[in-house]
Amino acid sequence: MAHAAKPAHAAVIGGGVIGGGWVARLIQNGVDVGIFDPDPQAARKIGDVMMNADHALARLTMAPMPPRGEMHFAASIAAAVDGAELIIEAVPERLDVKQAVYDEIEAAAAADAVISSSTSGILPSDLQAKMRHPERLLVGHPFNPVYLLPLVELVGGSATDPATIDRAAGFFAGLGMHPLPIAREIEAFVADRFLEAVWREALWLVKDGIATTQEIDDAIRYGFGLRWAQMGLFETYRVAGGEAGMAHFIAQFGPCLKWPWTKLMDVPELTDELVKTISDQSDAQSGQHSIRELERIRDNNLVAILHALKANDWGAGQTVANWEKSLYDAVPARTETAIDRPLETMRQQVPSGWTDYNGHMNEARYLDCFSMATDAVMRRIGVDAAYLAEGGSYFTVETHIRHLDEVTAGTQIFATSQILRGEGKKMQLFHHLYAVVADGGSRLLATGEHMLIHVDMNSRSASLPRADVAARLAELAAAHEALPRPEGAGRAVGGDQ
Amino acid sequence: MAHAAKPAHAAVIGGGVIGGGWVARLIQNGVDVGIFDPDPQAARKIGDVMMNADHALARLTMAPMPPRGEMHFAASIAAAVDGAELIIEAVPERLDVKQAVYDEIEAAAAADAVISSSTSGILPSDLQAKMRHPERLLVGHPFNPVYLLPLVELVGGSATDPATIDRAAGFFAGLGMHPLPIAREIEAFVADRFLEAVWREALWLVKDGIATTQEIDDAIRYGFGLRWAQMGLFETYRVAGGEAGMAHFIAQFGPCLKWPWTKLMDVPELTDELVKTISDQSDAQSGQHSIRELERIRDNNLVAILHALKANDWGAGQTVANWEKSLYDAVPARTETAIDRPLETMRQQVPSGWTDYNGHMNEARYLDCFSMATDAVMRRIGVDAAYLAEGGSYFTVETHIRHLDEVTAGTQIFATSQILRGEGKKMQLFHHLYAVVADGGSRLLATGEHMLIHVDMNSRSASLPRADVAARLAELAAAHEALPRPEGAGRAVGGDQ
Repeated sequence: MAHAAKPAHAAVIGGGVIGGGWVARLIQNGVDVGIFDPDPQAARKIGDVMMNADHALARLTMAPMPPRGEMHFAASIAAAVDGAELIIEAVPERLDVKQAVYDEIEAAAAADAVISSSTSGILPSDLQAKMRHPERLLVGHPFNPVYLLPLVELVGGSATDPATIDRAAGFFAGLGMHPLPIAREIEAFVADRFLEAVWREALWLVKDGIATTQEIDDAIRYGFGLRWAQMGLFETYRVAGGEAGMAHFIAQFGPCLKWPWTKLMDVPELTDELVKTISDQSDAQSGQHSIRELERIRDNNLVAILHALKANDWGAGQTVANWEKSLYDAVPARTETAIDRPLETMRQQVPSGWTDYNGHMNEARYLDCFSMATDAVMRRIGVDAAYLAEGGSYFTVETHIRHLDEVTAGTQIFATSQILRGEGKKMQLFHHLYAVVADGGSRLLATGEHMLIHVDMNSRSASLPRADVAARLAELAAAHEALPRPEGAGRAVGGDQ
Repeated sequence: MAHAAKPAHAAVIGGGVIGGGWVARLIQNGVDVGIFDPDPQAARKIGDVMMNADHALARLTMAPMPPRGEMHFAASIAAAVDGAELIIEAVPERLDVKQAVYDEIEAAAAADAVISSSTSGILPSDLQAKMRHPERLLVGHPFNPVYLLPLVELVGGSATDPATIDRAAGFFAGLGMHPLPIAREIEAFVADRFLEAVWREALWLVKDGIATTQEIDDAIRYGFGLRWAQMGLFETYRVAGGEAGMAHFIAQFGPCLKWPWTKLMDVPELTDELVKTISDQSDAQSGQHSIRELERIRDNNLVAILHALKANDWGAGQTVANWEKSLYDAVPARTETAIDRPLETMRQQVPSGWTDYNGHMNEARYLDCFSMATDAVMRRIGVDAAYLAEGGSYFTVETHIRHLDEVTAGTQIFATSQILRGEGKKMQLFHHLYAVVADGGSRLLATGEHMLIHVDMNSRSASLPRADVAARLAELAAAHEALPRPEGAGRAVGGDQ
């Protein structure tokens, strides 16, 4: 896989659901985007996608996003692609239309720009047939919603330079995606062949009155759909086959292919009657939700599934984790913080999942914030993954929190930390948690006072920290000794009443 | 849908992966199961499935499970089905074998027993063709792993009594499943037709060297597999189609069915060469994990996805939530707790997701426990959903925690709560958090002291509780006044040093 590095500047030609999804992913990842779409509604439509994408992003990650990229709506394809390293084509699925677009792109694009078609099925060899520099075109086929689903299939045509595939893979990985190069071009590539096969089968089932759209969807999402969110077809069957192995499984399952349920392989005709049946059933199934509501439901579910897989370090969750790591790594190495004032030890948005029945951030999440702040202090004095592996750590033995003000989801919050004591086995910390307010100032939400004891992780008993950790802590503690003692320090519950 | 009510007693004929999965689901839900399988390894194999199922269940829910059902390995089908309300057949996919099994079942089963075949494709009309009482047979087609995936397709044959489908739906819903009655029988029913279509397409792609098993799996699980875990085919496309509606979407998408990617509709021949190609690719893809490891990974992912969907109140997550509610409802209404001692306010297992880099329950989770305990006290004095809707609640304004001992994932923990003060707008609580230890005793993990203020949710400012709430709180506070003041109450961080 090529080195993940998002493009410095990109262009998107075509601002529908897919083009808009690309714009959202690019902008959120800090890439400036030139956009061309002759539709006078394009800006509004992209704005709608952007709103969904921002809602999803706020739930998806707490990683420090780079400054947002800028959208430039251009008056021509030539103006849109000017200076772009990555040019994404997302216009209707007609070969002649796409070829005409490439002609305009090539007239203005940088010589080394990568041109990526979002087509879901047309062969790249056909797409590039009339190009002057066909070696720089590939198919980069994304999946809706583009701002959330990691997959992008990469398919080169006969004239595509392998280096183009490599560069595109790097660009897409840099945008938090999972680029999947396909060895040989074939109509509809890989995923859409499966979707088409299922769609064909589903049309028969509806047409023949075997199942409604709702029943078909339920047959997917209560069963194998849950499996496929984390393992695909082959790995799932490998597990089902057990220790006897894959060859054994195929030997068992293979004969089914000759069973009568492969008979529905024709394509049903999409008569008006069948279209109406599907449309009516779909209304009965989903009509109680607007499309906007369904988009939100879908996106919230996708985010939750991505989180679930991230926590298990698996599949699409790993893609998200790697992307977040790159975001954290991209934050310029903090110039050594002045140690004569409290350290900034955490900063993020309040996730919507952190609120409770009172409509505000749940009390327990205050301690999550302080726990992160404590971790940051620990890292600051050298208690990192390597130190933990060596068997040293700090355990919190006492906590006092003053919950001073409410905060709602989406608010930017940050914590500062002061060392009250740092000697021997003990570390006493005092955190302040703030919300950023409109004028750039802040509002105090809570204070947290914590006593920690250094432990030997093998004996799980108190021990002295390693000398270098002790020295860094002592240096910080000495510097913070000059700071005023924070209000609330040493307080007991109900203390001043 | 029929009333959800698990069977009082069940039988499972055939103890393979599917039969074992049924046994696990039944036993966990408190149903006694008679089992018949002539394989001398059957008990060991079912034990293996049971171990996986118990690992998954511990992660899946904190709901109070009923006392486990008992497994009876019977020496004959007749002995296994004796007294069973629900008889599940899970023997190999051969019509003659299954018909012979039904013959033995019918000789011994109760007249009103439901006989449910786990076949993934044989028509129920064929299955029941030689039965004396065919009206009580249906197909109840589950999905592996049966103890986790909610879907069970219900298919009746020409002789099946609709009441049989209804009763089976009630049984399966009572086991936490999502029964999906299919209107008309067809080979492979609904879900497996889709799986077969994708499998056929996938075999071609491997055979033609377009994609490896790994690439095919990735094309699924990084893309549409994530969609299908929560919405199916039609609802996904409805969203993609936008406000123009489903008919518009089909008009757009329909022509694709005539595109060349429908050409691979033959069945590829499973030559030794193709089987070896698949087997080798699967080894390269997944061979670093044993099947046991893959099962654990799969189950942990499925649990995490089910949790994610439950938090969003959607699809398969709703199935889990409804099942949990029925488990809670099944706990006999607690007799009014004596109020002259601390109340038990929370009890559960430490979820594996609650541990941190120190290998123990994270410090912030201690406050989660105390937050739950506080909520239980609030409910106890009448601060329930209706009270919140009226605009009254308590907010925590101060917290003091002594983290006294570590606890690891899977440990049973519980909290008790003492009211230190309950008058006017104030409520001061003192919680103890304990771990259950081997001899049935307990080990103190932490104490939490909390000051809460009653608030008017509209003005978000302090206010007096409703009279009945104030009265219940005062009664509790008066009763607890006689209790000894807990050690650690009134303590400040580092207070005694």
